Amino acid sequence: MNEESAWFTAPAPRYDASAERSARERQDMLTKPPGSLGQLETVAIRLAALQGRAQPCVDRVYISVFAADHGVAREGVSAFPQAVTAEMVKNFARGGAAICVLASALDASLEIVDLGTVAEIGARANVRRQRLGAGTANMTIEPAMSEAQLVAALQLGRDSVERALTCGAQLFIGGEMGIGNTTAAAALACALMGASPATLAGRGTGLDDEGVARKVRAIERALTLHEARLADPAQALRCVGGFEIAALAGAYIACAHNGLPVLVDGFIASAAALAASRLCAGAGEWFLFAHRSAEAGHARVLEALNAQPLLDLGLRLGEGSGAAVAVPLLRLACALHNRMATFAEAGVSGKL
Amino acid sequence: MNEESAWFTAPAPRYDASAERSARERQDMLTKPPGSLGQLETVAIRLAALQGRAQPCVDRVYISVFAADHGVAREGVSAFPQAVTAEMVKNFARGGAAICVLASALDASLEIVDLGTVAEIGARANVRRQRLGAGTANMTIEPAMSEAQLVAALQLGRDSVERALTCGAQLFIGGEMGIGNTTAAAALACALMGASPATLAGRGTGLDDEGVARKVRAIERALTLHEARLADPAQALRCVGGFEIAALAGAYIACAHNGLPVLVDGFIASAAALAASRLCAGAGEWFLFAHRSAEAGHARVLEALNAQPLLDLGLRLGEGSGAAVAVPLLRLACALHNRMATFAEAGVSGKL
Repeated sequence: MNEESAWFTAPAPRYDASAERSARERQDMLTKPPGSLGQLETVAIRLAALQGRAQPCVDRVYISVFAADHGVAREGVSAFPQAVTAEMVKNFARGGAAICVLASALDASLEIVDLGTVAEIGARANVRRQRLGAGTANMTIEPAMSEAQLVAALQLGRDSVERALTCGAQLFIGGEMGIGNTTAAAALACALMGASPATLAGRGTGLDDEGVARKVRAIERALTLHEARLADPAQALRCVGGFEIAALAGAYIACAHNGLPVLVDGFIASAAALAASRLCAGAGEWFLFAHRSAEAGHARVLEALNAQPLLDLGLRLGEGSGAAVAVPLLRLACALHNRMATFAEAGVSGKL
Repeated sequence: MNEESAWFTAPAPRYDASAERSARERQDMLTKPPGSLGQLETVAIRLAALQGRAQPCVDRVYISVFAADHGVAREGVSAFPQAVTAEMVKNFARGGAAICVLASALDASLEIVDLGTVAEIGARANVRRQRLGAGTANMTIEPAMSEAQLVAALQLGRDSVERALTCGAQLFIGGEMGIGNTTAAAALACALMGASPATLAGRGTGLDDEGVARKVRAIERALTLHEARLADPAQALRCVGGFEIAALAGAYIACAHNGLPVLVDGFIASAAALAASRLCAGAGEWFLFAHRSAEAGHARVLEALNAQPLLDLGLRLGEGSGAAVAVPLLRLACALHNRMATFAEAGVSGKL
C-alpha cells in the first residue's frame, strides 16, 4: 500500500470561516438572551460554516449502514451469536430494525451494504452486496484484513458518499452492524490513542464480567501481536479494525473531502472517526457528534476527538441509530437559526 | 382560600400499570440488545403507562405559553428591562420567537396567554387576554398575589388544559415569559425545598455577579418576610410565585387529573412542577422532564422532583422551548416502540 499517494491521506479542505462569522453574528441578533439556546446555537453556526451558507439545512439525510463479521468473535467476545449479523441484515432489508424505523420517521435515505458476513445473506433487493470475504480474520492470530481488503473497504465507504452526494445529501450518517465489532473498535481506539484495553473494552451488546475480561485479553493479545505496525493508522485499521469500520472511515474521509458534514454515531463509529482523522488531516472538522453512548469506552474516545456530543441517552445499539435520533435536534437548530425574528425586526429591547 | 375543597388539591389518578408491564415486555422482544435504546425505552414505556395504551403516541402536542410581569423586577434582578415581557408577547403573536418556530416545525398547537404584563399589549388575534393585573406585587414588600389572583391563575392554567383536551392533545407543554421570573421561581423552589437562595439563584437571562448577588438578597428578604406562610405550598406559590408560574402549576395539576402527560420545560416550569406535586398528591407521576437547563439551580430542582431529563444542551431560554426541542425524541421513542420488529417476527437469534 502506497499511503503517500492514497486518496484517503489527502488533507481535507477548511470550512467557510466567513459563513461561520455571519452565522455567529445572526445568532446574537435573534430575539433571545445571547447564548440561551446553548448547543443548538453552536451546532447551527457549525453547520452554516460547514455548508458555507447563511441558512444551514439538513433536510436531506443519507444513512449508510455497513455490515460485516469479525474473526475475533471466535474468542467469545460477544453476548450474541455471530449468526445475528446476517440475520440483522435481513431485518434491515425488511424494515424491522431500529435504523429502518428511524430513517423512515426522519424521511432519510437508507442503504444497507453487506461487506462480508459469515452466513450468506443471498440476494436482497435493498441490500448492496459488496462482500470482501466471510468476515475478517481473527486479529488475535493474524491481521484482520489484507492490504487489498483494507483499500477496498475504504473505497466502498467512499462509494456510499458518492451516492449520497448524487442524492443531494446535506448530512451523512454512517451506521454499522457486526457481532464482535465493539472488540475491533476498542482495539483500534487503543492502538490510535495508546490506551489500555481495560479502559476501552465495554459490555457491547451485554457481556457479563467474565466476557469483558475475555474481551480485554483478546484485545491485549492482538495489540501485542501487531505492535510493530500500530503507529501507522492505516496499519492499525487493517490489523485490528473491520470491514465496516474501515468503510466508515473511508466514508467520513470522503465526506470531509467533499465538504459534506458527518453526524457520527456511537462507539464504533467514533473509533472509525478517530481513524479517519488520523489518516486525513483536517477530516475531524467535518464531524459532528450525536451522542455519548453507554459503552464504557466511548467517553474517552470522544475526548480524544475533542467532541461535544448532543445527546447522552444511554444508547448502545449501533446501526447509526444514535446519530439518527439526533437529526431532529440539528433540524430544529437550523429552523431556529433561519426563522427566528431579530431584535430589530421584532422591536424587542436588548440587554440593560 | 379553602384549600381542602380546592380542585387543585384533589389527588391525581395512578397510571396504567398493566400497560406499563406490556410495554416493558414488548421492549425486550424488539430486535436489539435488551436496554440498548436507553432512555428511549424508558420514555416509551412511561408514555404507554400514562396513556394506557400499547402503542403510545405524541403526534398531537399542545403548547401554552403564559406571560406575566413581576413586581420583584424593581429590585434589579434581571439583565433585561421589564418592557421585554410585553414586547416578547407581541413577538409570539407575530411568530418570531423561538417557541413559535419550534411549534411550527413540530406541527404543535401553540397558544399565548397574557396573564398580566406591565406594558399593555392591546388586542392581538392570537393572544388570549386574561390579565390578572399589571404584573404581580413586589414579593420583597408584600405577597406577590392576592388569594383571588392565585386561584384565578391556577384556574387559567386548568382552562388551557381543557382546550388542549378538546384538541385531542396527547402531550402538554407549558411555557412562560416574564422578566424577573427566575427570581420568583428560585424563591418558590427555596420555599418548597428548604434550600438557601444562593444555591438556587442563577444568572437568568444573563446577570453579572453583582446582579446575582442582588437577586439572592431579594429572595432572602422575600423568604424572611413571608416565612410564617411558606410551609403551605399554596401560600408559598401566592407569596413568592407569579401569575405564569401559578398557571403552569394549575395546568400541570389539571393534566394529572385528566391523565394527559406533561413534558416539563426548564427552571421556571420545574419550580411550577414542584409546586404542583406538593399541592396535588400523585401529580408528579404525570410529568416527563425535557432537559437540564444551564440555569444554576435547575439540577437541584430536578433532583427534588426525582427527574431524569432527556436533554442537557445548555438551554436557558424558557418559553417552553426546551420541552419543544425534546418532542422529537419522544416521537422517535414511540416510533421505535411501535414499529420495530420482534426477534420472533424477524427470525433473529437471541442472546447466547
